Amino acid sequence: MFENKENSRTSLEELGEFGLIDHLTRHFKIKQSTTVKGVGDDAAVLRFKDVDTVVTTDLLVEGVHFDLGYMPLKHLGYKAVMVNLSDVYAMNARATQITVSIAVSNRFPLEALEELYAGIALACELYKVDLVGGDTTSSNKGMLISVTAIGTAKKEDVVYRSGAKPNDLLVVSGDLGGAYLGLQVLKREQEVFAVNPKNQPDLSPYAYLVERQLKPEARKDIVELLEKLDVRPTSMIDISDGLSSEILHLCKESNVGCFLYEDKIPLDPTVISTCEEFNLDSSMVALNGGEDYELLFTVDQKKFPKIKGNPNFTVLGHVTEKEEGAYLISRNNSKIPLTAQGWDSFASD
Amino acid sequence: MFENKENSRTSLEELGEFGLIDHLTRHFKIKQSTTVKGVGDDAAVLRFKDVDTVVTTDLLVEGVHFDLGYMPLKHLGYKAVMVNLSDVYAMNARATQITVSIAVSNRFPLEALEELYAGIALACELYKVDLVGGDTTSSNKGMLISVTAIGTAKKEDVVYRSGAKPNDLLVVSGDLGGAYLGLQVLKREQEVFAVNPKNQPDLSPYAYLVERQLKPEARKDIVELLEKLDVRPTSMIDISDGLSSEILHLCKESNVGCFLYEDKIPLDPTVISTCEEFNLDSSMVALNGGEDYELLFTVDQKKFPKIKGNPNFTVLGHVTEKEEGAYLISRNNSKIPLTAQGWDSFASD
Repeated sequence: MFENKENSRTSLEELGEFGLIDHLTRHFKIKQSTTVKGVGDDAAVLRFKDVDTVVTTDLLVEGVHFDLGYMPLKHLGYKAVMVNLSDVYAMNARATQITVSIAVSNRFPLEALEELYAGIALACELYKVDLVGGDTTSSNKGMLISVTAIGTAKKEDVVYRSGAKPNDLLVVSGDLGGAYLGLQVLKREQEVFAVNPKNQPDLSPYAYLVERQLKPEARKDIVELLEKLDVRPTSMIDISDGLSSEILHLCKESNVGCFLYEDKIPLDPTVISTCEEFNLDSSMVALNGGEDYELLFTVDQKKFPKIKGNPNFTVLGHVTEKEEGAYLISRNNSKIPLTAQGWDSFASD
Repeated sequence: MFENKENSRTSLEELGEFGLIDHLTRHFKIKQSTTVKGVGDDAAVLRFKDVDTVVTTDLLVEGVHFDLGYMPLKHLGYKAVMVNLSDVYAMNARATQITVSIAVSNRFPLEALEELYAGIALACELYKVDLVGGDTTSSNKGMLISVTAIGTAKKEDVVYRSGAKPNDLLVVSGDLGGAYLGLQVLKREQEVFAVNPKNQPDLSPYAYLVERQLKPEARKDIVELLEKLDVRPTSMIDISDGLSSEILHLCKESNVGCFLYEDKIPLDPTVISTCEEFNLDSSMVALNGGEDYELLFTVDQKKFPKIKGNPNFTVLGHVTEKEEGAYLISRNNSKIPLTAQGWDSFASD
């Protein structure tokens, strides 16, 4: 006999829209003193005093940004929050509140949404942000998640994309290329599974890469570390759309150029070995793979002693005058113009 | 020969994601002094001093909340903003900023999105709100719009759903049922058109209803009027999900009951005549039709002289003790329990 999986399926119609919001958000506790009223009125009410408010929003679409074939719903919920918090931290701000809206087709039972919200709740817990609103609705096809994140920073602490100055150092947090390779590994296993469902994949050699893809962490710690080190970046940007394209954004907004040294790009050993296995160029993967929720920033050269040797930071190169252009200086010392090959949801595959 | 309509079709792929955001938002001008940085960085930066911030978000899905068969894209953009501003006003707050995210399938050319954003721009212009961020992405099917609206109010001015007291008056702005009937008229014309495309519909007798459906206005004026009259509601709620269900929300949050008098429900003459034509009960339409972006609020009885006779307000009934329940008092004086038959996107049709 087959297991009756229907036991744990509650249709969304049974609850209705308001019942659903109540049900999904009832375990969320308010942690921020700035949250006066969260879910449950026409709007949330926040009370900020003498600080700037930052607001960012991102939309994740099934089949475009995620594939539920290898993305567990709890991870998806967690990641949807990280994607937005990363943008708040890229302003050198502290994340305080989020709203989460979801559109789902009837194929998802309540239990699936509970999993999704378990991931959202975990993210809120670990990053100390409050869920203060949202909307749930049906969709004709698939799942879509829209998150808006709010944060605060003292006016003088906010860091824009536009403040880089020639001779500033170009610094990145963490290491690059892991999330993209994690996706390649998961896609390969999915194909193997399609052919032979009995095959038990051993993902342990790729654990780091898979985690970078399925459970990325936004770099709250970097904002805190920079404050502790008394280093205020001159400019900063989230590079989840790809290092290469985001450096170009930063250069454009700051009206500068840059030299980026290929041999400085931080790569985890697993990234190097897996690139060899997949016959991929690790620099290209690091430059254009995307989905690494790391921060790229520029600092005055005088701050070098504070950055140097810190395992969280890698100096990738430096900022130049605009006229000098934006270049990758390759290992064999040739100058290759940086091009935006970042992730673009409208590009055909 | 056929007209070559392809002349005015630009595919989204040509622009790419960042080009698209730039292109769509380049004409938006910052109007609010609280907007420090709008579109163009990782997050928008807002500067509020000594006021509470309200945040609300709504998701509109093609085929669920709108049908492009009768909803022009410009109107859709306008309405998507109104839906959210209405929630800000329902907090007795001023709307200041919005973010707009859209997911669209490749079937939409750039010109379609320009139409949509023309409607968003018009709404921003008329309601003096700044577009400060958003996301554009592709979808597998149809269009989805996610708007987040931000507003401000002095701490003591914010009005929640929870402040209604027994004996308070129950007041509604505008008149009810028009938007629902407008939709019925549009659906009927769509069916007629499907059978006979040469038929030129005469919508002029229904102009008011169609406008209520296609170009609703959020009641910014009501918030301003209440301030001018020095009337601070004890509770307030947006009733676009249906008068009946929203009264129940308000009663639940305020821990009270209410008596709502059927003969007090404000109906436009076109609503009455069109209900007769469609063989619909006008009270049911007004109570449960939804999509009327009006505000329901409660005020202390002492404020009655200020409300009375103002064409923007109708006293529908009064608040009672919770134990008395929530009732519609019908024209023939029978007590009918109010039930939530508001709009629910998960309900089967």
